[in-house]
Amino acid sequence: MYEGVVQDLIDELGRLPGVGPKSAQRIAFHLLQADPVDVRRLAEVLVEVKDRVRFCSLCGNVAEDELCRICRDTRRDPSVICVVEESKDVVAIERTREFRGRYHVLGGAISPIEGIGPDELRIRELMTRLADGAVTEIILATDPNLEGEATATYLTRLLRPMGLRVTRLASGLPVGGDLEYADEVTLGRAFEGRRAVE
Amino acid sequence: MYEGVVQDLIDELGRLPGVGPKSAQRIAFHLLQADPVDVRRLAEVLVEVKDRVRFCSLCGNVAEDELCRICRDTRRDPSVICVVEESKDVVAIERTREFRGRYHVLGGAISPIEGIGPDELRIRELMTRLADGAVTEIILATDPNLEGEATATYLTRLLRPMGLRVTRLASGLPVGGDLEYADEVTLGRAFEGRRAVE
Repeated sequence: MYEGVVQDLIDELGRLPGVGPKSAQRIAFHLLQADPVDVRRLAEVLVEVKDRVRFCSLCGNVAEDELCRICRDTRRDPSVICVVEESKDVVAIERTREFRGRYHVLGGAISPIEGIGPDELRIRELMTRLADGAVTEIILATDPNLEGEATATYLTRLLRPMGLRVTRLASGLPVGGDLEYADEVTLGRAFEGRRAVE
Repeated sequence: MYEGVVQDLIDELGRLPGVGPKSAQRIAFHLLQADPVDVRRLAEVLVEVKDRVRFCSLCGNVAEDELCRICRDTRRDPSVICVVEESKDVVAIERTREFRGRYHVLGGAISPIEGIGPDELRIRELMTRLADGAVTEIILATDPNLEGEATATYLTRLLRPMGLRVTRLASGLPVGGDLEYADEVTLGRAFEGRRAVE
């Protein structure tokens, strides 16, 4: 509908996740009217991110060096590894300030529908990290959905025979939520995992 | 929360209209995992759009040359000008294939709250276009909201003394909509503008 390069921009923006044709158009017109310096900065950071960002060779988290910031940090406890699906999950957990161990990013979860099996995930790399016996606990922090649970189950079967302590993040009622709006599975889990009041 | 350039990218994306922090993060991770060729193409089109796209010197629509595609098209009726707020509106009207005249893009609507008065819009340029007397009808196609209506009223007062036919797009029930869900203003307009069935 638009002339040449404007339509190209709308098309490119429309390929981004969560950006529909209407949003793509809105963003394109915003950029057309924006300061050229700002638009150039966005273009530069796009190129730079692809040039500089890679994945930590140890844990698979995003990194700008061979190792990510967390793997480089010698103050982090090397005996506990928290296994997550994505780098986003690392950030979410870091925000809680509850965890001082290391991470392992799988790069997804087991999903037969999407054709993702254990071989597509960084499970072999996790096994290599456990070889020297320094790790004593694995916290499975995959998503509490079908794929995440399947991945956790798979990893539990794999890791428990190795004599490691394998734990899973607690499921239950979200803090600040309403009990009446909780779905029955979550509420069921909250009952199952109930704790004695001290 | 993220290392260097990843956070820069999330920040830049978060500045785009309609992209919140969560979407910015999702888009950033999509780009991190995307083919470098695709990301480079997006970066290039961003730079190109700022280099090449300007605004038609006649109507104010987006253009890659001195004049936009529509102003260059000699088959378009030069006696009718449809006045719109933005280039997006030109595209929306073109899609209907109902209009074969020319456009004039104001670059917004009168909005005292945002500090946009008639001088901030391309009204002077519109007046210049009317000087030779070739135009006989002005269709006011500003948005049917407070600012758009104010702009249409302002333009009507300015244009009617010039002996031009000034028309406004019909307000009424959207086609395919439900009468019971129409707001009272729209329904009122639909009554006001009712037409005899032939």
